[in-house]
Amino acid sequence: MRFDPPEASLILADVRRALAEDLGPGDATADLLPAEAMAQAYVITREAAVLCGQDWFEACFRELDADMAITWHATDGDRLDAGQTFVEMCGSARALVSAERCALNFVQTLSATATVTAAHAAAVAGTRTRILDTRKTLPGLRIAQKYAVRCGGGSNHRIGLFDAMLIKENHIAAAGSLTAAVRAARAYHPQLLLEVEVENFAELDEALAAGVDRVMLDEFSDADLGRAVAQVAGRAEIEVSGGVDFSRLKNIAASGVDFISVGALTKHVRAIDLSMRVKLNPK
Amino acid sequence: MRFDPPEASLILADVRRALAEDLGPGDATADLLPAEAMAQAYVITREAAVLCGQDWFEACFRELDADMAITWHATDGDRLDAGQTFVEMCGSARALVSAERCALNFVQTLSATATVTAAHAAAVAGTRTRILDTRKTLPGLRIAQKYAVRCGGGSNHRIGLFDAMLIKENHIAAAGSLTAAVRAARAYHPQLLLEVEVENFAELDEALAAGVDRVMLDEFSDADLGRAVAQVAGRAEIEVSGGVDFSRLKNIAASGVDFISVGALTKHVRAIDLSMRVKLNPK
Amino acid sequence: MRFDPPEASLILADVRRALAEDLGPGDATADLLPAEAMAQAYVITREAAVLCGQDWFEACFRELDADMAITWHATDGDRLDAGQTFVEMCGSARALVSAERCALNFVQTLSATATVTAAHAAAVAGTRTRILDTRKTLPGLRIAQKYAVRCGGGSNHRIGLFDAMLIKENHIAAAGSLTAAVRAARAYHPQLLLEVEVENFAELDEALAAGVDRVMLDEFSDADLGRAVAQVAGRAEIEVSGGVDFSRLKNIAASGVDFISVGALTKHVRAIDLSMRVKLNPK
Amino acid sequence: MRFDPPEASLILADVRRALAEDLGPGDATADLLPAEAMAQAYVITREAAVLCGQDWFEACFRELDADMAITWHATDGDRLDAGQTFVEMCGSARALVSAERCALNFVQTLSATATVTAAHAAAVAGTRTRILDTRKTLPGLRIAQKYAVRCGGGSNHRIGLFDAMLIKENHIAAAGSLTAAVRAARAYHPQLLLEVEVENFAELDEALAAGVDRVMLDEFSDADLGRAVAQVAGRAEIEVSGGVDFSRLKNIAASGVDFISVGALTKHVRAIDLSMRVKLNPK
Amino acid sequence: MRFDPPEASLILADVRRALAEDLGPGDATADLLPAEAMAQAYVITREAAVLCGQDWFEACFRELDADMAITWHATDGDRLDAGQTFVEMCGSARALVSAERCALNFVQTLSATATVTAAHAAAVAGTRTRILDTRKTLPGLRIAQKYAVRCGGGSNHRIGLFDAMLIKENHIAAAGSLTAAVRAARAYHPQLLLEVEVENFAELDEALAAGVDRVMLDEFSDADLGRAVAQVAGRAEIEVSGGVDFSRLKNIAASGVDFISVGALTKHVRAIDLSMRVKLNPK
Amino acid sequence: MRFDPPEASLILADVRRALAEDLGPGDATADLLPAEAMAQAYVITREAAVLCGQDWFEACFRELDADMAITWHATDGDRLDAGQTFVEMCGSARALVSAERCALNFVQTLSATATVTAAHAAAVAGTRTRILDTRKTLPGLRIAQKYAVRCGGGSNHRIGLFDAMLIKENHIAAAGSLTAAVRAARAYHPQLLLEVEVENFAELDEALAAGVDRVMLDEFSDADLGRAVAQVAGRAEIEVSGGVDFSRLKNIAASGVDFISVGALTKHVRAIDLSMRVKLNPK
Repeated sequence: MRFDPPEASLILADVRRALAEDLGPGDATADLLPAEAMAQAYVITREAAVLCGQDWFEACFRELDADMAITWHATDGDRLDAGQTFVEMCGSARALVSAERCALNFVQTLSATATVTAAHAAAVAGTRTRILDTRKTLPGLRIAQKYAVRCGGGSNHRIGLFDAMLIKENHIAAAGSLTAAVRAARAYHPQLLLEVEVENFAELDEALAAGVDRVMLDEFSDADLGRAVAQVAGRAEIEVSGGVDFSRLKNIAASGVDFISVGALTKHVRAIDLSMRVKLNPK
Repeated sequence: MRFDPPEASLILADVRRALAEDLGPGDATADLLPAEAMAQAYVITREAAVLCGQDWFEACFRELDADMAITWHATDGDRLDAGQTFVEMCGSARALVSAERCALNFVQTLSATATVTAAHAAAVAGTRTRILDTRKTLPGLRIAQKYAVRCGGGSNHRIGLFDAMLIKENHIAAAGSLTAAVRAARAYHPQLLLEVEVENFAELDEALAAGVDRVMLDEFSDADLGRAVAQVAGRAEIEVSGGVDFSRLKNIAASGVDFISVGALTKHVRAIDLSMRVKLNPK
Repeated sequence: MRFDPPEASLILADVRRALAEDLGPGDATADLLPAEAMAQAYVITREAAVLCGQDWFEACFRELDADMAITWHATDGDRLDAGQTFVEMCGSARALVSAERCALNFVQTLSATATVTAAHAAAVAGTRTRILDTRKTLPGLRIAQKYAVRCGGGSNHRIGLFDAMLIKENHIAAAGSLTAAVRAARAYHPQLLLEVEVENFAELDEALAAGVDRVMLDEFSDADLGRAVAQVAGRAEIEVSGGVDFSRLKNIAASGVDFISVGALTKHVRAIDLSMRVKLNPK
Repeated sequence: MRFDPPEASLILADVRRALAEDLGPGDATADLLPAEAMAQAYVITREAAVLCGQDWFEACFRELDADMAITWHATDGDRLDAGQTFVEMCGSARALVSAERCALNFVQTLSATATVTAAHAAAVAGTRTRILDTRKTLPGLRIAQKYAVRCGGGSNHRIGLFDAMLIKENHIAAAGSLTAAVRAARAYHPQLLLEVEVENFAELDEALAAGVDRVMLDEFSDADLGRAVAQVAGRAEIEVSGGVDFSRLKNIAASGVDFISVGALTKHVRAIDLSMRVKLNPK
Repeated sequence: MRFDPPEASLILADVRRALAEDLGPGDATADLLPAEAMAQAYVITREAAVLCGQDWFEACFRELDADMAITWHATDGDRLDAGQTFVEMCGSARALVSAERCALNFVQTLSATATVTAAHAAAVAGTRTRILDTRKTLPGLRIAQKYAVRCGGGSNHRIGLFDAMLIKENHIAAAGSLTAAVRAARAYHPQLLLEVEVENFAELDEALAAGVDRVMLDEFSDADLGRAVAQVAGRAEIEVSGGVDFSRLKNIAASGVDFISVGALTKHVRAIDLSMRVKLNPK
Repeated sequence: MRFDPPEASLILADVRRALAEDLGPGDATADLLPAEAMAQAYVITREAAVLCGQDWFEACFRELDADMAITWHATDGDRLDAGQTFVEMCGSARALVSAERCALNFVQTLSATATVTAAHAAAVAGTRTRILDTRKTLPGLRIAQKYAVRCGGGSNHRIGLFDAMLIKENHIAAAGSLTAAVRAARAYHPQLLLEVEVENFAELDEALAAGVDRVMLDEFSDADLGRAVAQVAGRAEIEVSGGVDFSRLKNIAASGVDFISVGALTKHVRAIDLSMRVKLNPK
């Protein structure tokens, strides 16, 4: 199982921004540790979680000590038990202490998304339905969070406004009709997936006739979802959106839709409780 | 009541990073709206909240339409009722649609922190105790989140490792003793607040004798907190930290400590549920 | 007719990079003009062309004189005759002289792409076939060149490796089979257009069976193109690529394919011959 | 023979900008290749060319795989025959496939300039005349193109407006006279080469009397060039500019001028036709 | 003795900015040295000085030749005698020649600050008084200069407006009273050192009553300083500021104040006279 | 009299760097002033000086309050008397207080260079000799300091290693002879001024024979300078360098050389003593 982390340069930019916030002109207390002191450290999780953020974690320490030795006992996407030690480090004591908070902040935040995604994915396991993320993300962390969704077993919706088209009511109003909007969109961007948000069966019919790639069903009841799947009959992918509650996931998946998109994966965060212990080497 | 948002250039950097994530090479669907079309829009909150993020919200739209008119019906720090319309806009339809998601992501994330901080502050109202944040923040958003804490009625702990000194067990081990660590820290950075984490009464005594500005009591019971307050007797500020549960806040405050620092304010996020409506102007 | 230029911030970045190259620490000869001198200027094209680059042109001058008055007599996408004056300016003499070369470099380069694209589009006019660009672009100018293609009446293929998937022989070899590669790609990125490069009819059949969105026919003869169109029968879009010569465009279009992608639009540049005249205002 | 490429940091900036354009949030198809797969690759040129761009090419691959092995069979400035394999690589399969297009875009663009420059230099070989470039360059690629001109056997004119002074008609008008303009320019920037554009023999005399370093003869006939060379008699360098056609180069050089500056070297690009083959290593 | 240089990334940013100024598009004369030539070099100081700037010096050379061998015969903070060779290098001849000026500029500037600070520190040696710097620094070099102050045996005042609070007359006027200003400041930033500038004994009393951490005595006579020390009686730290002349340092220190802040340490620079010799290796 | 300040974007970069150093995450004490409070301010110089730095000063305040009204009573290059008020401002009280230190740091530093340059220029007034600066500058402030030299009546030597060539002993050693070095340099960079450092009359002859633009006489006695001027006889410009003491300027100028370059203009700084007064407007 692989989850293809973002390009290294994007991760490094995230890490440098975080270190700049925390270290600014320098760690005032690192001065208390000798420049040449070495230390060992390890991190445990105090609660069960799906791990995510290895590359960010490593980059935080490597920015301050390029030679830091880091040994992982788990890989992004792995389930961790409460109390499990999942990474050990050995290197400059100052680097360990100065980068600790930033490194943990990344892992506790991204593992939170991976963990909640895994719960959603488990709820629809065994069906054709897959869990998608949305553009409701933490500002500045979208690419990282989308990776976390993959680590949790979810799939990514578009990254942003540029790599797929979702036609909504305002676009339709501006174009004059749903059909006109679809035609214009195809002409502008023939290479992009084209999805239309529909609110009723008449719009669904018009979208299918216009030849869209995917329809987003907005606030359809469970019963209507079944009817919509039958009506679409494989002519387009079906995505369900609109404030989906966790408890409804199973029912929606049972209707046979392709995707359920869930804002909660990335807009809410319940940081995983991690703890890092540092032990200075005796001189 | 004022909360002093960060310098405009910091806010702009946050906003540009978020827009770059979402718009990248351009909003593929903005093409469906005429370049010159104007629209009106407003945002409501679907749940009660403390507002935070006005400057980020404005900057998202102003980056795309410098002339966007934005009228606020509330101010950062104000409590919003469920269903309340708190801002209205008028400007380029494309700018409204293209910047919508980024603008809402900022407000839903920062208002989340302000709202949960307000609940914590309310729990200790009427005591001398104040709620502090920590360095457990969302990577890249620390300055923004610290502002949100102020909007919610909390106070800020240090921004990062550079603007105050918190001496922990590893520093003490490296320096040889708590007293030696305090002396070295004062020598290096005489202008910074000096706080020491203590785990028992012996350490507390040593810290007070060494002349620290503040002590952090780590995992003290309620009973021990009272004893500690008595022992300190105003010679230093007292901060309680270490996984403080919301239900314990009142009891801790009753002991007379100065500060309770709460990681949950900024490491967890339960995004406020917002909705923006856009209405194209007729031609 | 509209062509939706890139976001203003991307254009500004292009312009600032170009001004930095040319002005570096400052225009040594601008010193010869009084700081407060005003001038008028206009630009003519010495050859017929399709205009492209207005926003870059304006930004070059506005960076040096925010109040420069700029009056256009044509719009991006318009055909210009040889000898036609298409823009007039009035503002700081120094700004006019210092920004002239950068501004012209943008317009002569981008109009070159628009002009050659228009010739290609004209060659297939009246057919269902559309002209696409490729990723063979001038380093650093891709977004600008893709806009120029639109101004010339062409359509854009994917921007880069991130917004659509083109599966080639190496991907197929790694996945084990074309079908396996398609399945894996869909799983990783369900929201992206999926195209497969095929070299013969057996591969074409396999691609259609795997349900791709588009096939790229690599070096098919005109006769084989007709057979391929019949075989596809609307089940996928068809793109012809692979070193297409201008003289073959009509024949290829006659076969009924959807797209012809042409590297020459953006990898070759025959800059349009422009001339700017500046006239200092008498004191 | 050496051509002194630009400082490594400038090359890296070019390369990162190009990779950002093409990879943005990540290569969607790289996911199809195993993260640990290795591959071999080589590049051939399908047409005769003068090679240019080694450092850019290497940096593209090394950004994605710092350990990529790259073996060159030619050096910048070397003539390549059609069909010649000029570089071989061995490293991460993903890195090879993801960086291929950017790397080739640099070499095909810069070799184009080197190749056309070499043809111009050959046309004046055996004379004292040297071929110069101009400021008519591709926005963002000036330093790289100026290096390509050197690789092709040409010489560089000034980099931009800051490192030499070319006094034109507007500067003269502002200063009151050619002599006054020269005097002011010398006073402002005594360390910069001072060139004046002259359109007739009277201006030429005035320029020589004012003590300029170089004169630019604008649109002089072949006969007038001879007379000008005689009149200058070594008191200044002579540059011929103004839309010089390739066929006229020999005649101009025969007149004995020092330099011919040619905008076509850098404003036009006819990309060299390159092909890269990648072969995955068997597992 | 250790002085904890700024984080490596801050130093690198300083160095890159300086190299960009000096090298811009490239060292035109480095071309005269063979690309592969090696050389040896050493630096002597022509006058006695306290060394400061090793990391900046090294980074200048390492940016151009990552493998440059650099051997130090002294360490930041060490006193150098006139004529002493303090560093030797061996590496690329071009790198040595191209980076020489930038590297020396850093060391001659920072050692200047270290040297003058050491003189001030010596003047108050044996007393409790310590020498502080101020915010009167060279724009862009504050962090570097503050490090130089530490190397010279001084202590740092706040880095900027963000890491400590100095309440002055305008703040007091706005708040209504000194006491009100102190109270508000404590409420806003409980974790920051709070200092108040006082101009007479009444203000001093009010500041002490308000519980400030430090008082800044502005233009107090030597006699008044003694009275102030007695009045404060250890209840706050005492800083003397306001155009302190070198000759007065001893007298001020004799009064028993904690700190004397001296703008001259960082706003004036008398660059140390250094000389670097480069010797090309025979081929 | 005009001195052509650097491009606005360069000035803005200087200013933003300085503000970032001083304000970082925000001015902690600005909170004490009401956000909407207005104030008036003025700056006096406590000593005679030549003013320099208006654009940097303005940009500091305008970054924090775009509407700040700024009225100048003097212009860059003007002589100020001790006690003279040279600028008045009116705008946001917070912006005035927060930007004050940065703005003054620029003017006190740049006016120092302008002032000392003016003294040097006065010493050679009435002769043909002009005062030049060097590359011995404060890291990061070279362009600004070179402007200050012009404001003081000096001329600029080359900006950096890229815009003129100074051939020294190592270049000559590498090339084999002075003549060979000059020939190679001309071939590489025909558009750059070519200067050679000579240490005796034999080298001077060789340089003149090789046709250099300028010679730098290194440590020649006054008597030898006269002989050198006679020997050069107008065939090249003459620059005197090498630790020139202020008291020797007159004698050197009397010898008839063209330029004296003086490192002390920019490597030493004796900041001008300025004072800014802020007066809050009554509510």
